[in-house]
Amino acid sequence: MAVQKPSIPRGTRDFGPAQMVKRNYIFNTIKAVYQKYGFAQLETPTMENLSVLTGKYGDEGDQLLFKVLNSGDYLSKTTEADYQAGSKSFLTKVAEKGLRYDLTVPFARYVVMHRNDISFPFKRFQIQPVWRADRPQKGRYREFYQCDADVVGTDSLLCEAEIIMMINEVFEGLKLKNFTIKFNNRKVLTAITEVIGAPGKETEFCVAIDKLDKIGKEKVIEELVAGGFSADNLQQIDPIFDGSKTIAENLVFLKSYFASNEIGQKGIQEIEEILSYLDAYPIKDTHLELDLTLARGLSYYTGSIFEVKANDVKIGSICGGGRYDNLTGVFGLSDMSGVGISFGVDRIYDVLEELDLYPETHASSLQVMIANFGSETTAPGITLMNALRALDINTELYPDNAKMKKQMTYANNKGVPYVVVIGSEEIANETYALKNMVTGEQESLKMNDLISKIKNSH
Amino acid sequence: MAVQKPSIPRGTRDFGPAQMVKRNYIFNTIKAVYQKYGFAQLETPTMENLSVLTGKYGDEGDQLLFKVLNSGDYLSKTTEADYQAGSKSFLTKVAEKGLRYDLTVPFARYVVMHRNDISFPFKRFQIQPVWRADRPQKGRYREFYQCDADVVGTDSLLCEAEIIMMINEVFEGLKLKNFTIKFNNRKVLTAITEVIGAPGKETEFCVAIDKLDKIGKEKVIEELVAGGFSADNLQQIDPIFDGSKTIAENLVFLKSYFASNEIGQKGIQEIEEILSYLDAYPIKDTHLELDLTLARGLSYYTGSIFEVKANDVKIGSICGGGRYDNLTGVFGLSDMSGVGISFGVDRIYDVLEELDLYPETHASSLQVMIANFGSETTAPGITLMNALRALDINTELYPDNAKMKKQMTYANNKGVPYVVVIGSEEIANETYALKNMVTGEQESLKMNDLISKIKNSH
Repeated sequence: MAVQKPSIPRGTRDFGPAQMVKRNYIFNTIKAVYQKYGFAQLETPTMENLSVLTGKYGDEGDQLLFKVLNSGDYLSKTTEADYQAGSKSFLTKVAEKGLRYDLTVPFARYVVMHRNDISFPFKRFQIQPVWRADRPQKGRYREFYQCDADVVGTDSLLCEAEIIMMINEVFEGLKLKNFTIKFNNRKVLTAITEVIGAPGKETEFCVAIDKLDKIGKEKVIEELVAGGFSADNLQQIDPIFDGSKTIAENLVFLKSYFASNEIGQKGIQEIEEILSYLDAYPIKDTHLELDLTLARGLSYYTGSIFEVKANDVKIGSICGGGRYDNLTGVFGLSDMSGVGISFGVDRIYDVLEELDLYPETHASSLQVMIANFGSETTAPGITLMNALRALDINTELYPDNAKMKKQMTYANNKGVPYVVVIGSEEIANETYALKNMVTGEQESLKMNDLISKIKNSH
Repeated sequence: MAVQKPSIPRGTRDFGPAQMVKRNYIFNTIKAVYQKYGFAQLETPTMENLSVLTGKYGDEGDQLLFKVLNSGDYLSKTTEADYQAGSKSFLTKVAEKGLRYDLTVPFARYVVMHRNDISFPFKRFQIQPVWRADRPQKGRYREFYQCDADVVGTDSLLCEAEIIMMINEVFEGLKLKNFTIKFNNRKVLTAITEVIGAPGKETEFCVAIDKLDKIGKEKVIEELVAGGFSADNLQQIDPIFDGSKTIAENLVFLKSYFASNEIGQKGIQEIEEILSYLDAYPIKDTHLELDLTLARGLSYYTGSIFEVKANDVKIGSICGGGRYDNLTGVFGLSDMSGVGISFGVDRIYDVLEELDLYPETHASSLQVMIANFGSETTAPGITLMNALRALDINTELYPDNAKMKKQMTYANNKGVPYVVVIGSEEIANETYALKNMVTGEQESLKMNDLISKIKNSH
């Protein structure tokens, strides 16, 4: 067989040991919070039938789906006419399956397929990769993880309060202090279009102001004008761009702004109910900001919407979500409302990296390496290793009798905090030399003292 | 959009909350042992270039690879002649990527691509799904997880001892008592073919006796005869079928059997060295059995081989592995030897299910549900919920003011061990009614007493 220079597909990544430790730190933090709040885990298959995926993400989404060729002689059911008809039509003959594009559609499919077995409200979380045939670029990958939690089958606004608290617990767990949870309500946005005299234009309005962060107020206004909003409309919109108001001030403003608008009052009511639940939680600084220009692109949101910004890093939102009315309608199950959230692990990874927030040592990494100097040291090395492992301290005995320098380089590269050396002198005295790889400090200790020392530093 | 009845692809599975709790129990047990033994995690992309995958698993394997269609207008670079040439040749024009078929080839690729950054010996573990377009049947899926650990870049037989101990710790952790680790050495098998006068026939020999469990001794002999082994050969093979010998007895037998065979003696030496390392470990019942008929199908093994059987369940091996000389040769990096192991999670899942070995409660599941009877009970409910969560007790407040029966059914279906009810009487007395969902017992407690009670049962 010819020797090949191997590579991986564009837009995909290997995660080596050092990256996995950091990624797991993020995943485990999120997962622990989800579980503490009563969410249960779901995993769905990597491949879904194209009939499930197609048409759910718009035309562009359909283009970005990775399609899997049928197995075996996949051309056998095609004709030359099929081939001549081109890629799109030929596809239906040669591919029945595609790769998961997000976690929402598989979740909706699961709910529909298992609706008779599920006790609603159903609180599920799901942490799995998704695939999109986007053009790869900095920060945009063709394979990336999503970390979603949703509650479906209830309209209770307690769920919104829980989501706000989960966001707080996750970022507190990750030691990120300076973040803002922007929230808003789609009913408020609908009411704004009504109040300014542009009813029915909610979609255009949301699409335009969704770009505020990226293109600025002036260009948003331009886009609104192009979308048919009048000068009079726009004048009345102006107050919502005032980002300096507190939540209380915004509510005072909205109450007069929506004085005679029903849906607007419903939006205010929802916001106030959520805030009243939050009052009962012990965390007082909820990092909340009522941002009347927050719209979120997706059209299926119908109530609360959320987005989280890391204020010290130039990066897009690190978490987002909202309430929807109709998760499963496309699969024939109507009135399945719920609220969900998704953490952007790749961006959170970059934020923690840039702010240097990763813990220095990780319980999941190797804690102790015992150097190996041949058969004489093997048995005492194994004994010490097992005593440490019995205390759940990750330990290894270097497998070969190699030069000291090689073993120390290995320990250093692996980031091991402690190295134990057993030489002939040590065997004679029944002591072990313990080297702290961070401080460089070295001392000679009896086994029990060495074990206590490592255990206490652990 | 037309309403669809959704389904999932044949041979794939959804894992709902109850299954995920059990699967995570297995994954977490294996992962903790791998980490305790100094293995570091690696994750590779789901899609690999077909140039990396093709030709690594034999012709049958190539057939079983799932291939991913190129994105965009994938037919644009094809001609009618390509189409006429048929599925196999057409494939090279329309698909460049495939789904991971195992964890070994991606690992080998990773090692080659990162050989200058890795400190060898490299101890990596990897827990990810793989995909095979096999015909689905009971216990055989098109998507399933593999749980591999390998050490590469060392010949040290201490690694084999470590693997045997890891197997012991994993199954001890999973409370499986009656299992056997069958081990053997490829050098012993090679020597057998030499000793009986059939040198160079190692492959035929291994392929045939690998089927012993499935087809029995008689049919194995028939297959060996068909493969060109003589009656004289077979007579000399006979003693290895005696499965009643202890390890020590087998070694005595082999020492005389291989008295003048060099590779046989090397095999014995390796076995003895591994056993001498095991003596230094605290676990004395290692569940080891030296099975001279253990061959394992894969041709790349060159030293120790392992296979684990659950003795109380009729099922194939639940774990297997071995030593190899040349992991990365096909990618141009020679002399990369190592030893690896893989746990079969789907089979282990079935074994634990059949023997009823799953723990009754899981720390990852919901521990307490607080019933919701409207706004009066919401604030005290949230307060209690947060007090419990602060102790890492997974707790939720039912989100809606629903009928008692509905809330109890929900708690029951979710398998929650405790339900707390806050009624008007409870609010007046500042007490909570705690219901133990397993025993049915119910008592009225002050908040701190309730918290201690749950905490202590936890």
